[in-house]
Amino acid sequence: MAIKVLTIQEDILGANDEKAKENEDFLNKSGILMVNIMSSPGAGKTSLILHTIENLKDKARIGVIEGDVASTIDAEKVSEQSIPVLQINTAGGCHLDAYMIEKALKNMPLDDINLLIIENVGNLICPAEFALGEQIKVMLLSLPEGHDKPLKYPLMFTEADVVLINKVDLAPLLDFDTDSFIKAVKGLNPDVKIFQVSCKTGEGMEDWYSWLESQFKSRLSS
Amino acid sequence: MAIKVLTIQEDILGANDEKAKENEDFLNKSGILMVNIMSSPGAGKTSLILHTIENLKDKARIGVIEGDVASTIDAEKVSEQSIPVLQINTAGGCHLDAYMIEKALKNMPLDDINLLIIENVGNLICPAEFALGEQIKVMLLSLPEGHDKPLKYPLMFTEADVVLINKVDLAPLLDFDTDSFIKAVKGLNPDVKIFQVSCKTGEGMEDWYSWLESQFKSRLSS
Repeated sequence: MAIKVLTIQEDILGANDEKAKENEDFLNKSGILMVNIMSSPGAGKTSLILHTIENLKDKARIGVIEGDVASTIDAEKVSEQSIPVLQINTAGGCHLDAYMIEKALKNMPLDDINLLIIENVGNLICPAEFALGEQIKVMLLSLPEGHDKPLKYPLMFTEADVVLINKVDLAPLLDFDTDSFIKAVKGLNPDVKIFQVSCKTGEGMEDWYSWLESQFKSRLSS
Repeated sequence: MAIKVLTIQEDILGANDEKAKENEDFLNKSGILMVNIMSSPGAGKTSLILHTIENLKDKARIGVIEGDVASTIDAEKVSEQSIPVLQINTAGGCHLDAYMIEKALKNMPLDDINLLIIENVGNLICPAEFALGEQIKVMLLSLPEGHDKPLKYPLMFTEADVVLINKVDLAPLLDFDTDSFIKAVKGLNPDVKIFQVSCKTGEGMEDWYSWLESQFKSRLSS
């Protein structure tokens, strides 16, 4: 039974990778940077997106795709920022895939967007397996989740271009070993960029905004 | 593409449900209570299990099945308690299923066990879809994850027999609305049992131990 599932999964992944490549080619031609944000439920993806919009909305034309199993709670929060937002409900599905994103791209006002942020479904496992066509994969880990997560969920940390360690304001109350966490992440993914932030207090956020802006500018000018 | 995946999924779920029923019949005949603990990564499943073992090990013959994508970190912690522990590594898979549990049951010293605790893979979505044959489903939500989770991940909260709200010691630092959380859970699942606990400080844990012991005793005597 386990092997059967795996075989189906591989076929799906192969087809998904091809579709993701098509999406990425289309985005590159259209001058759009797409950023895929992934994390466990409640790590702070929506909060990160809201603060990033607020900080960069005068510098980029931002759009957001919200992925959720159910509800439009996050999309409603983001739409208050008066930017284009599209909700994808997966109806139980545990990740977004490249086909969903292809459909979403066809339903967004892309002429008004050059920075497209995707909030993936809250899940530390499956979203890492499904490329969407994004140029940057961002992984958000919040302190309360614990420093052992890279060893337990290695693919997510291996695939990420950027890891944000969020909720650092809770550090005094938790036993999170930041050095051991960073060592484990770098062991899986030596070139990964790491930021330590608190979306709540704003600590460390300026570095993230500057980095994202630099990525955005270098790609627009190329 | 989405429809194709769904069809495959349904076949898998149907077969899994049959296997789960077989597992449950076997456990009932063997006088074993199996408890399936599910949550997001880092909500505190291992900590809950360690404290539960410590409190109930003189009252029950406990065994543990540890489900993880990779690593044996949790199994190593649990095995320090000198009870039978079996590690299932799913090699990337995002949930345990009834076939894995059937295999695990064949590889555990069941004559020495009457309370079998399963730590599922850390994931708020897929484990809720896959029955294992457990008589009790426990769902653990930690305060930092936020009170909006029942609306965003409804199946998990609908399927649970028990919801434990963990990390209540962090309440003063967070904006977690307990009333709104409980209302949302009861809206999906009116008969669910809810406990508010902190595995760290011990707050509320006695009620959980007593309840689990009562479940265990009533099933043993029936």
